[in-house]
Amino acid sequence: MEFIIAQSIFSKGLSDVSKAVSSRTLLPILSGIKIVAEEDGITLIGSNSDIIIERTISVTDEKVEIHKTGSMVVSAKYLTDLVKKLPEQIHVKADNNQIHIQAGTISTKLSGIDAEEYPSIPIIVGDSIHISAEELKDAVKTTGFAATKNETRPVLTGVNLTFAENSFTSVATDSQRLAFKRSDIQSSGEGSFVVPKSSIDELAKLIKHYSGMVEIQSAEGYIHFKTDEISLYSRLIAGHYPDTSALIPNEVKTTLVLCKETLIKGIDRACLFAGEWKNNNVVLSINEQKLSISSGSSEMGSIEELQEIKAIEGESDLKISVDGHFLLDSLKTINDAEIKVKFSGSMKPIVIESAREESTYLHLISPVRSY
Amino acid sequence: MEFIIAQSIFSKGLSDVSKAVSSRTLLPILSGIKIVAEEDGITLIGSNSDIIIERTISVTDEKVEIHKTGSMVVSAKYLTDLVKKLPEQIHVKADNNQIHIQAGTISTKLSGIDAEEYPSIPIIVGDSIHISAEELKDAVKTTGFAATKNETRPVLTGVNLTFAENSFTSVATDSQRLAFKRSDIQSSGEGSFVVPKSSIDELAKLIKHYSGMVEIQSAEGYIHFKTDEISLYSRLIAGHYPDTSALIPNEVKTTLVLCKETLIKGIDRACLFAGEWKNNNVVLSINEQKLSISSGSSEMGSIEELQEIKAIEGESDLKISVDGHFLLDSLKTINDAEIKVKFSGSMKPIVIESAREESTYLHLISPVRSY
Repeated sequence: MEFIIAQSIFSKGLSDVSKAVSSRTLLPILSGIKIVAEEDGITLIGSNSDIIIERTISVTDEKVEIHKTGSMVVSAKYLTDLVKKLPEQIHVKADNNQIHIQAGTISTKLSGIDAEEYPSIPIIVGDSIHISAEELKDAVKTTGFAATKNETRPVLTGVNLTFAENSFTSVATDSQRLAFKRSDIQSSGEGSFVVPKSSIDELAKLIKHYSGMVEIQSAEGYIHFKTDEISLYSRLIAGHYPDTSALIPNEVKTTLVLCKETLIKGIDRACLFAGEWKNNNVVLSINEQKLSISSGSSEMGSIEELQEIKAIEGESDLKISVDGHFLLDSLKTINDAEIKVKFSGSMKPIVIESAREESTYLHLISPVRSY
Repeated sequence: MEFIIAQSIFSKGLSDVSKAVSSRTLLPILSGIKIVAEEDGITLIGSNSDIIIERTISVTDEKVEIHKTGSMVVSAKYLTDLVKKLPEQIHVKADNNQIHIQAGTISTKLSGIDAEEYPSIPIIVGDSIHISAEELKDAVKTTGFAATKNETRPVLTGVNLTFAENSFTSVATDSQRLAFKRSDIQSSGEGSFVVPKSSIDELAKLIKHYSGMVEIQSAEGYIHFKTDEISLYSRLIAGHYPDTSALIPNEVKTTLVLCKETLIKGIDRACLFAGEWKNNNVVLSINEQKLSISSGSSEMGSIEELQEIKAIEGESDLKISVDGHFLLDSLKTINDAEIKVKFSGSMKPIVIESAREESTYLHLISPVRSY
């Protein structure tokens, strides 16, 4: 294997795939990155037991020039750190379980492992689903936060992506809160998958600056997200994702329209006084046609503030305690300047939606008892 | 106590003095900030057993308006976090061991403690030394890194500041490396003080954007640094600071002039291969009239690079091993684009100086055995 590559391209590629590499792996070869040089370009692969990231750098980019095909596995940590610190043009050459990396007057040697020993990548064939990267990233952002970190119900640690003929829905819940988003898409394939939250977050980071289409395929417990340059394979979470549609209250007593930024600031302040208290309790109520946000502990002190209500519909008698951090998590994923908060009684979940008519997301937060 | 104050001023002041406050204190009152309102302004005080920071906000700034004098101690953490999150104008009022803070429609109460119980500040009278803040900050930056973190010789955990009639010197050493800086100043007072590295770092941060004069006084094991707005009192380290002048090699075999930035990059790369090895060994030698920087371990691999030498004086036969991280620590504090590195033999310390004639700093690093 021998090739010449631009430092910036090589460094970006290594840093992308090394996100799947853990230094605490049982299989030592998985602490490495597999480099494959073929006639048409370079492929970099990093993986752990849950996720595989593959990055291709094509010779048509003119940033890479293949002199000799071949492959080798090299320590992810050392290689990534080294290439980051090298100047522009890099000459890579493998022989005798060593990789020689030359850049200007800098010569380095790193130990390598035979690439034949690297685990093979799942072969996924079958129907493809196509979705725009923007749609996918938006869904992950607006719903992913609600997945649980608690492993007792593994299926809830994932995000449930469902593709139907004309729609795409994304759902996550930790059983105390729920986030839901639905969009209209044109897709050839169908399917419902529970993808680990960590994998979907990694995907969102990898395609952060990409705005084309993402191809999705699934087989044998794996899902494969693919763009021109990046592939991410993730293990799926087995099990039946609960039907969450029944949780949404259908009888609304009060609907408030509020300014999102102002509300975030108020809840954030109230959390200061609720932080060390049970459930981060923040009390929302209506006081003189304003929204009162309050919290406090007998030890530290208390806070109360009044915020303008942009519009109110239904009863103005309202008092409910919610986990302030749950409310902040939800509000921070929302792009809209104005939001609707719907109340159905002090023991029923509150619903947060966009104030726009065509809104497609919905967040639901269960109240906490305040005594 | 009652006053009105601009949020930005109050928040900055609280954040400055809270740097001295530790939440893990044996005296609960020291986890608070003492607020004193007098006719002429507000004083904020935070402290621990080693350091006291005092910030004054004068009424002449028109950012504070005193309604009633008085004082109170309030939890540093809660007060600082809260004020950071409040809007512009803040109304503070104390009564019955509580402090009421009002900003717009936001009302908060925080528990307070009687300020009478707060420890008193050392009273320091006597000769003053005056030094420009720039001179002091520069000395701290260029020497402080060499102080040791190892508590077995407490005096070496400090920076030795010595003021003579016309000069100011700053010295720090951990016995493997030494940093020294000397400047000419006009001062009325004299004295030599060993100031804890942590205190002097805190001072440098507090006066980061200040360019006036700093007044220094000392008494009863304390040193007091003072500007118009900020006072920092630090405990001094007791004990005799060693005479370090004898450590500087007086017979130089080779002097190299090198580009600092290029050298930093080279040493940084070499450290990658030396990091997990004994003493971060990096080998410097002269090879074909270039500086060779190399390191390596049999397990991971190796690196060698050649760098231009801007000028050479003396013997060109040279090979020495040094701790690469020590070299980086030193180089990173230097403002000059070109530096002189002086070698006196493979078992003698190397000396780093500015390539400029009027240079006033000197760094010394002991070699490490390489076998």
